[in-house]
Amino acid sequence: MAITFTNHVDELLKSFIDDMQPSNVLVLADDNTARQVLPRLPSLATATAIVIPAGDCHKTIDTTCQVWQQMEAAGATRNSIMVCLGGGVVTDLGGFAASTFKRGIPFINVPTTLLAAVDAAAGGKTGINYSGLKNEIGLFSHARQVVVSTIFFDTLPQQEVLSGYAEMIKHALLTSREDFFELTELEPATVDWCEMLPLVETSVNIKNRIVAADPHEHGLRRTLNLGHTAGHAIESLALQRGTPVTHGHAVACGLVAEAVLSHMVFKFPTDLLNRLAAFVRDHYGPVRFTCNDYPALLQFMHHDKKSRSGEINCTLLRLCGDAVIDNVVSDDDMSTALDIYRDLMGI
Amino acid sequence: MAITFTNHVDELLKSFIDDMQPSNVLVLADDNTARQVLPRLPSLATATAIVIPAGDCHKTIDTTCQVWQQMEAAGATRNSIMVCLGGGVVTDLGGFAASTFKRGIPFINVPTTLLAAVDAAAGGKTGINYSGLKNEIGLFSHARQVVVSTIFFDTLPQQEVLSGYAEMIKHALLTSREDFFELTELEPATVDWCEMLPLVETSVNIKNRIVAADPHEHGLRRTLNLGHTAGHAIESLALQRGTPVTHGHAVACGLVAEAVLSHMVFKFPTDLLNRLAAFVRDHYGPVRFTCNDYPALLQFMHHDKKSRSGEINCTLLRLCGDAVIDNVVSDDDMSTALDIYRDLMGI
Repeated sequence: MAITFTNHVDELLKSFIDDMQPSNVLVLADDNTARQVLPRLPSLATATAIVIPAGDCHKTIDTTCQVWQQMEAAGATRNSIMVCLGGGVVTDLGGFAASTFKRGIPFINVPTTLLAAVDAAAGGKTGINYSGLKNEIGLFSHARQVVVSTIFFDTLPQQEVLSGYAEMIKHALLTSREDFFELTELEPATVDWCEMLPLVETSVNIKNRIVAADPHEHGLRRTLNLGHTAGHAIESLALQRGTPVTHGHAVACGLVAEAVLSHMVFKFPTDLLNRLAAFVRDHYGPVRFTCNDYPALLQFMHHDKKSRSGEINCTLLRLCGDAVIDNVVSDDDMSTALDIYRDLMGI
Repeated sequence: MAITFTNHVDELLKSFIDDMQPSNVLVLADDNTARQVLPRLPSLATATAIVIPAGDCHKTIDTTCQVWQQMEAAGATRNSIMVCLGGGVVTDLGGFAASTFKRGIPFINVPTTLLAAVDAAAGGKTGINYSGLKNEIGLFSHARQVVVSTIFFDTLPQQEVLSGYAEMIKHALLTSREDFFELTELEPATVDWCEMLPLVETSVNIKNRIVAADPHEHGLRRTLNLGHTAGHAIESLALQRGTPVTHGHAVACGLVAEAVLSHMVFKFPTDLLNRLAAFVRDHYGPVRFTCNDYPALLQFMHHDKKSRSGEINCTLLRLCGDAVIDNVVSDDDMSTALDIYRDLMGI
């Protein structure tokens, strides 16, 4: 896995493609990135464009089959290369389609959202949703190259930026008090992202070090699940109620709930917990629920993909930079944490 | 990749499963092996059986989706294990389904045909047919264990046995004159296969050494394509004419044609060529075609998956055990070789 950080995306892409001498170049985009981003990259002007509809609801085996068909039609061989240009749906599905076509052709990820840059595009997880379950079908397969830039972020909706920022906060919590303070002093919605490439680089490199040490998620990589047990449950609840929230919004709230648990179990410092809760409350706002929703939330947590035998499993923190994986959390403790989350978020 | 050779299949499976302590066990079979082989393995009596229709025409994404659905329904987790019990369709498709479910659960291959034992089950190639092309979608993923036995072979149709035997002859040609002579002195259709486990072990180990040295087919592994450029074309022609032949029958004829080419290009010894041709003629019989079929055959060869830029690409032999990959063969030379094949086969 090679990750390059640059705001000269087109030049870099051109040199990668020249070096690899592929028999042909395919570019996978969704209808947004095909319209808005692809024209900004002249190095891909002669590539065969494969365009899929935007949105997580299209991250399916049917879309994958359409991509395979178009790869066939374009005469793709093992010497071809596919550039995945988009957010997490495009890089996840594109990586899956490329890695299974003729038993695998190389692909380059060019994330166009902050969330994809700091989360989906690097790390080797590819996949699609199946049977109502997220990323249920897929495989571990690394992009040949990941090109991370921030030049595409200034046109992102504010919610999209915040969604990615939640994963950056998670990475900071897994690293150091200083990193966490730096991020929570910024205003992510109004910052000039073109100048923020070094900040994104720091965040991606945190993830990258963890993934390199444990590519197949047997241990250390599970620290990256911080915030995601409660977060996925909150995301699923919101979806079920017909008022979906972004992944990052749910994760931000999940980080607060799991920081509360970290305080309960490992005495995670109160000042850090309060700072996190204030940042999430002020910048994201709470995802609202009452104690009547706890049974549904707990149910989602028991059925999380990471659960091994039906128990609620969380990554928790002793301190910033000191995470503990595989904590089994009782329904009572999680309910208490959700109570305190609601207090902290003022709901 | 661990391969075990034993005719005590059930005991071994039981000990593997006990050692792995899976959360549950799934067994994939086709409707033949579910009826005829599964009842012989009490260690799988409590496993969840997933049964697919027999035949290469069912090696599809639709069948794969049905397998994924049934894995879901069985509550499969990353701690589950899938046993693939069958011929090459079951081990190829099962390996693909398992390797992409929740980004990969472990699988054990138990080949029940000679062809699957010596070819499909070991080596890490998984896949399905797509868009009319064989094994077009798939990935490299090794079975956790491959259990090779010969106890299932005595009930195989003679054509099935011969089909696998052609791959054994290929392995012998890639190894030594002695191995080749040993195999061509036997009567594969009438031998007692229960006693032939050591012979199968030798053959699988030849392939295994080659695969271990080059798992992703960048060089050495392409020696295993011996006989397959002409063989696949012959197989495709027979299929197109509505008179399909087994894979191994086509490969046996392909080995003859490519041994002729080997003689033309590298002076592969005449006595070995004649011995091979006589064995194939007497035990398999020729796949018949005339010079009117050459354009179709050449067309198939130019479109072979292994072709890099449309040329005909063959692995050829200098001697037994001395293979040369990536020989570009002209249409004229291939046509001459097909002429001589027809002479040698008496058609």
